[in-house]
Amino acid sequence: MPSDKQKYWIGFDLGGTKMLAKVYDSDFTAVGSDRTKTRGNEGAEAGVERIKQTIRNALKNADVSVKQAAGIGVGCPGPLDLDLGVVLDTPNLGWQNVQLRKELQAEFGCPTFIVNDVDAGLYGEHRFGAAKGSRTSVGIFPGTGIGGGCIYEGKILRGRKSSCMEIGHVQVMPEGPRCGCGRRGCLEAVASRLSIASRAAMAAYCGQAPNLLKEAGTDLANIRSGALAAAIEAGDVVVESIVREAARHIGRAAANIVNLLAPDVVVLGGGLVEAMTELFVGEVENTARKRVLTSFKDTFTVVPASLGDDASVMGAAAWAQQEAKE
Amino acid sequence: MPSDKQKYWIGFDLGGTKMLAKVYDSDFTAVGSDRTKTRGNEGAEAGVERIKQTIRNALKNADVSVKQAAGIGVGCPGPLDLDLGVVLDTPNLGWQNVQLRKELQAEFGCPTFIVNDVDAGLYGEHRFGAAKGSRTSVGIFPGTGIGGGCIYEGKILRGRKSSCMEIGHVQVMPEGPRCGCGRRGCLEAVASRLSIASRAAMAAYCGQAPNLLKEAGTDLANIRSGALAAAIEAGDVVVESIVREAARHIGRAAANIVNLLAPDVVVLGGGLVEAMTELFVGEVENTARKRVLTSFKDTFTVVPASLGDDASVMGAAAWAQQEAKE
Repeated sequence: MPSDKQKYWIGFDLGGTKMLAKVYDSDFTAVGSDRTKTRGNEGAEAGVERIKQTIRNALKNADVSVKQAAGIGVGCPGPLDLDLGVVLDTPNLGWQNVQLRKELQAEFGCPTFIVNDVDAGLYGEHRFGAAKGSRTSVGIFPGTGIGGGCIYEGKILRGRKSSCMEIGHVQVMPEGPRCGCGRRGCLEAVASRLSIASRAAMAAYCGQAPNLLKEAGTDLANIRSGALAAAIEAGDVVVESIVREAARHIGRAAANIVNLLAPDVVVLGGGLVEAMTELFVGEVENTARKRVLTSFKDTFTVVPASLGDDASVMGAAAWAQQEAKE
Repeated sequence: MPSDKQKYWIGFDLGGTKMLAKVYDSDFTAVGSDRTKTRGNEGAEAGVERIKQTIRNALKNADVSVKQAAGIGVGCPGPLDLDLGVVLDTPNLGWQNVQLRKELQAEFGCPTFIVNDVDAGLYGEHRFGAAKGSRTSVGIFPGTGIGGGCIYEGKILRGRKSSCMEIGHVQVMPEGPRCGCGRRGCLEAVASRLSIASRAAMAAYCGQAPNLLKEAGTDLANIRSGALAAAIEAGDVVVESIVREAARHIGRAAANIVNLLAPDVVVLGGGLVEAMTELFVGEVENTARKRVLTSFKDTFTVVPASLGDDASVMGAAAWAQQEAKE
């Protein structure tokens, strides 16, 4: 059984479909975890109960008592009040104004920090993964949308109350296709998995992507990152050119961000990048390096995320440690 | 005569044509100054001597002894090594690898900090001017080029060694006009004074801007901000539409920066903005507010710089105070 004097940090990842709690010792070795379905439709009150129960289960699995918990970090999607630790709105779950920090502090009696899930993931990469040792790292995570984050001098870059780095909504194509946010030509509208899948589905429907058609059909719900990668592997050159074009858009956005923030490291993560790492990292790096100011040409690297699904939960726990110290 | 125990901070602004030293008391009231021509063509060694002499003259004018100088802040153009305080290259002056920090510390025996001049100006606005009290401020200063800066949680946002926020080289128009940096469609290529002047000169040449033609002719060197403002005032609607289009480009870039950095305040400064404040602030604000994510719509203001020519020199002095404290 872990020593009573040992301090443990709890990371929590609140996703649209599942929630995950993990308990870490002070070396950030995971010593126990629990996961369950989120079931957002059962409402916020039931949801908060499930969060508490999942944390209790993880502590139990780790054989760690509540008193040994030094802090909790929660990675959440959607707009947050970072100072108050309130989940303002979760489009996926339909929860509003959930006082998550207050609830968890009351339950577990330790400092609790609520943070954007993408920021948590990048902070994980900064502390333990692909961005270790960087002064400024920028994360770009293309998925259904495109998440972004920045760690600056060891801390998550943030707005006055909320998170920032909405890279998915940087405009890269004036008068480009309509984005889910209502504006036009956002990076998300031309380079997210959803945007890639919609164009790949057209190609499949028109007979230009026979392997994709056979494997995944023309339903966007089935054209996941793995299906795109498999179709390219099997020789669907049109799918490859669609994905490469999207990656180049990300590279252009990355170049602008390098010109602004001069990061040491640009971390690419998410399902698309995991499925087609070489394609994405290569295309983004080549495009960005050609387009940054000469003085920034050799000041940054583009690397794939290295912690996988654990980045957010581990990053959230480490962020709690960072913030509890202050 | 100022008390011997009083501490004084020296600000220095190294410009392409003139240099300015100002001595501030601890309340940042200016108590003395000196300015002279830079004469970059006489070389770096002579230049450093002139810098020292200008500072000595300013101290003398302020009746402050060298021993009372608590720190020196120097605002410089061009790429710098911020940690070593080295001016790496000044395209305007032809100086290279000038150990300015070392030289001034040896001469005046007080901590010296070399900082980008645009950053110094925005820091001045943050401490004493238009961005006072902000958590994150972004500065956009259209002139011959377009300078940018960011103050984040009380400090100048920076790269590993050099300054960052190269807003002038954010691409706003893919395949747009060629920029001085060699790339295409940079903000500077479509919204700097030089870019505006070049299009206004065409309009003047073609008879579409009779007032501009009469006042300034078709030579870019004469089409300064004041001439553009006067032509608009006198009814040159084509000149007005050229300037408004440039301001909208700045607004689009500002929207992207708001989506990334979530500033409280966007400060607009420089000659163009001083000459046409209402036009620029209005057009940039309207364009940006329409284009940011809904969650950022009411989180920022767009304001004109308020310290004028003093921003850089005052900001450099205040930055020396900030850094000397650390």
